[in-house]
Amino acid sequence: MNTCVAETSPCILYMREALRLGRRGRFVTAPNPCVGAVLVRREQIVGRGWHTAYGKPHAEVEAIADARQHGVNLAECTLYVTLEPCNHHGKTPPCTEAILEAGIRRVVIGVRDPNPVAAGGLEFLQSHGVTVETGICAQECLDLISDFLVWQQQSRAVCLLKLASTLDGRIATRTGHSQWISSPPAREYVHRLRSQVQAIMIGGQTFRVDNPLLTCRLEGHDMCCQPFAVVVTSSLPPPSSACQLLNARPSQTIFLTPESIATGHAATQLRECGATVWGLPLAPGSVGGLDLRAALTLLRTELGCHHVLCEGGGSLGRSLLEQGMADELLLFLAPKVLGDANAAPVLSGRAPQHMDEALALRYTDIRPVGPDLLITCKPVLPGTAAAPATDLDNS
Amino acid sequence: MNTCVAETSPCILYMREALRLGRRGRFVTAPNPCVGAVLVRREQIVGRGWHTAYGKPHAEVEAIADARQHGVNLAECTLYVTLEPCNHHGKTPPCTEAILEAGIRRVVIGVRDPNPVAAGGLEFLQSHGVTVETGICAQECLDLISDFLVWQQQSRAVCLLKLASTLDGRIATRTGHSQWISSPPAREYVHRLRSQVQAIMIGGQTFRVDNPLLTCRLEGHDMCCQPFAVVVTSSLPPPSSACQLLNARPSQTIFLTPESIATGHAATQLRECGATVWGLPLAPGSVGGLDLRAALTLLRTELGCHHVLCEGGGSLGRSLLEQGMADELLLFLAPKVLGDANAAPVLSGRAPQHMDEALALRYTDIRPVGPDLLITCKPVLPGTAAAPATDLDNS
Repeated sequence: MNTCVAETSPCILYMREALRLGRRGRFVTAPNPCVGAVLVRREQIVGRGWHTAYGKPHAEVEAIADARQHGVNLAECTLYVTLEPCNHHGKTPPCTEAILEAGIRRVVIGVRDPNPVAAGGLEFLQSHGVTVETGICAQECLDLISDFLVWQQQSRAVCLLKLASTLDGRIATRTGHSQWISSPPAREYVHRLRSQVQAIMIGGQTFRVDNPLLTCRLEGHDMCCQPFAVVVTSSLPPPSSACQLLNARPSQTIFLTPESIATGHAATQLRECGATVWGLPLAPGSVGGLDLRAALTLLRTELGCHHVLCEGGGSLGRSLLEQGMADELLLFLAPKVLGDANAAPVLSGRAPQHMDEALALRYTDIRPVGPDLLITCKPVLPGTAAAPATDLDNS
Repeated sequence: MNTCVAETSPCILYMREALRLGRRGRFVTAPNPCVGAVLVRREQIVGRGWHTAYGKPHAEVEAIADARQHGVNLAECTLYVTLEPCNHHGKTPPCTEAILEAGIRRVVIGVRDPNPVAAGGLEFLQSHGVTVETGICAQECLDLISDFLVWQQQSRAVCLLKLASTLDGRIATRTGHSQWISSPPAREYVHRLRSQVQAIMIGGQTFRVDNPLLTCRLEGHDMCCQPFAVVVTSSLPPPSSACQLLNARPSQTIFLTPESIATGHAATQLRECGATVWGLPLAPGSVGGLDLRAALTLLRTELGCHHVLCEGGGSLGRSLLEQGMADELLLFLAPKVLGDANAAPVLSGRAPQHMDEALALRYTDIRPVGPDLLITCKPVLPGTAAAPATDLDNS
């Protein structure tokens, strides 16, 4: 497959490498941000570092240690770092001091630290004679810390919405047959994701139709360490012996349901099986829809979940997108066509009349996974991305 | 946007550069194949060439001329060429002789020439002491000549099927509102395509709803040089004065309709307006569907069309895919979600019960066009791409 990569200047390439390194920390640095850094001397990358885990050294310190190990004179280097170096004593000493101590004279920062406790690194460095530039790959650097921003600003879990559809937006035939939309490599990728998040969330319809286990079943995965299974449903099931979740792991199963139902008989029965049932308020302005921000807040505060993976169905996925709670959409697009208006749609439940009512996203990553494409998107905040007007139409 | 490019060996990178060059010839080399070539000396590309137009020198000859102009000693070079060098006198002398005459000692060929008249280049070179390797990037090199193979083997026009949909496979809201699915850069891209093909094809529903003109309206485009407008429909329209095509360019408008209707009164009226009406047989094994191979054959043999661009709608697009007549699918995927099961689907008219009945494609190119993605696919021939079995599911 060809992929079209825009030509870029060297400093963008250095920051992209720092971004690539920083992304390695996803799922393991929580609740810290992901950060990557490279040291560049005479147009060569001579040191690489990233924040490898919560409590471990920061990216800048790792990059400095890497360059030192190779005997590099740090005073000749420029540091490229995706996030403003921290200026406070947390689990580790301030990175700003490590930079000064190393003798680095020039620092290029992707995005400033939005955390007021850690900020001020830029001014501190400048006041000590370091040349500082900012704003290289700003959007990508901001995306790298988007999970962190959710944790900081909203005290809820980050939600990844995973969907798999045909090229024409279908997740099953009209008879409900869906094995398989996506390829074995794509399904393996999802199991890897399951091993990285703390909870898998599904809607009531998927729970009833698929009767899923929602475990990571990768070879070598520690079976004792499984994500919570979260079912968002307006009607609770009876405690059937055929239910895989209630049979195999009731204590890891959570039902999120309207508050009125969470106090009823069905909820009591499920609790007696060992499952958890929590009531959710209705979403503001919605007709019967549950407040998914409240759901993600509960999962964060009560269960310590940093990342939740929603695996559908189309109605829950649509609600997450509509409520702005799908922080990232991961769409596995299979190169297949059903060509049937009555086949099951990947997303449903809205009724927009006008194209302006479409939910707006932007692409952040595209990559092949086996024969499929994995398309990653983030939501566009309302009012930020109006398309320019044009007279050219395709009629 | 990040794009993931697999790590590759140098010889694959050289052939990819030859492929990239070869693609520049698309739409202008017809009915010749697209071919690209590079000359490599000590791991450096020192000559580039491609077949720039029908009747012009072949890619190998262009690459040799390019290297010579830079004073390169050709005896030290390896030639990478996407297609086996021709071995016959056509519009130009055989490339095999040009290679020998240049003193090139090693040739890497992407794919052998399927044209028996031009083939034999590999054996000729070997018999003159040249080392020849084949099979580098074979699938991509085969894809580069896929238009040529259609012209050679089927005597019909090549059909590009262009679609534009939201991420969830919709082309309009439930009210039919569709302005706009894709972005201004995507719509401009389509106008560029219109300037490169000899005919635009649409279905009857699109003709009636959109009342389109189907011209290239790029600034600077020669308005006298427009593609034919082809409407595939089972019911002919009355010669209305509101019809843009009949008003503005009846002599460039062709209606393709069932043979029984092509002999009726409505057809006579359209012919009196200056339009062309041709009868098509029904597709073998289809209930009422028109034979689109016959359509593309007529466009090639009667009007000399090498490339036809189909711009929908969803029913004609689905028929082309189903009949194996969509040689390439160009899907502009907008990062938008309608989330409505009743919004207009991008493809329709089939009723598969089982996922095995999905039409199989494969991705050949993915690129951003403005905020949208342009996804290019080719059909998978039945029986060639079974997915490996696996036990891993996502339940």
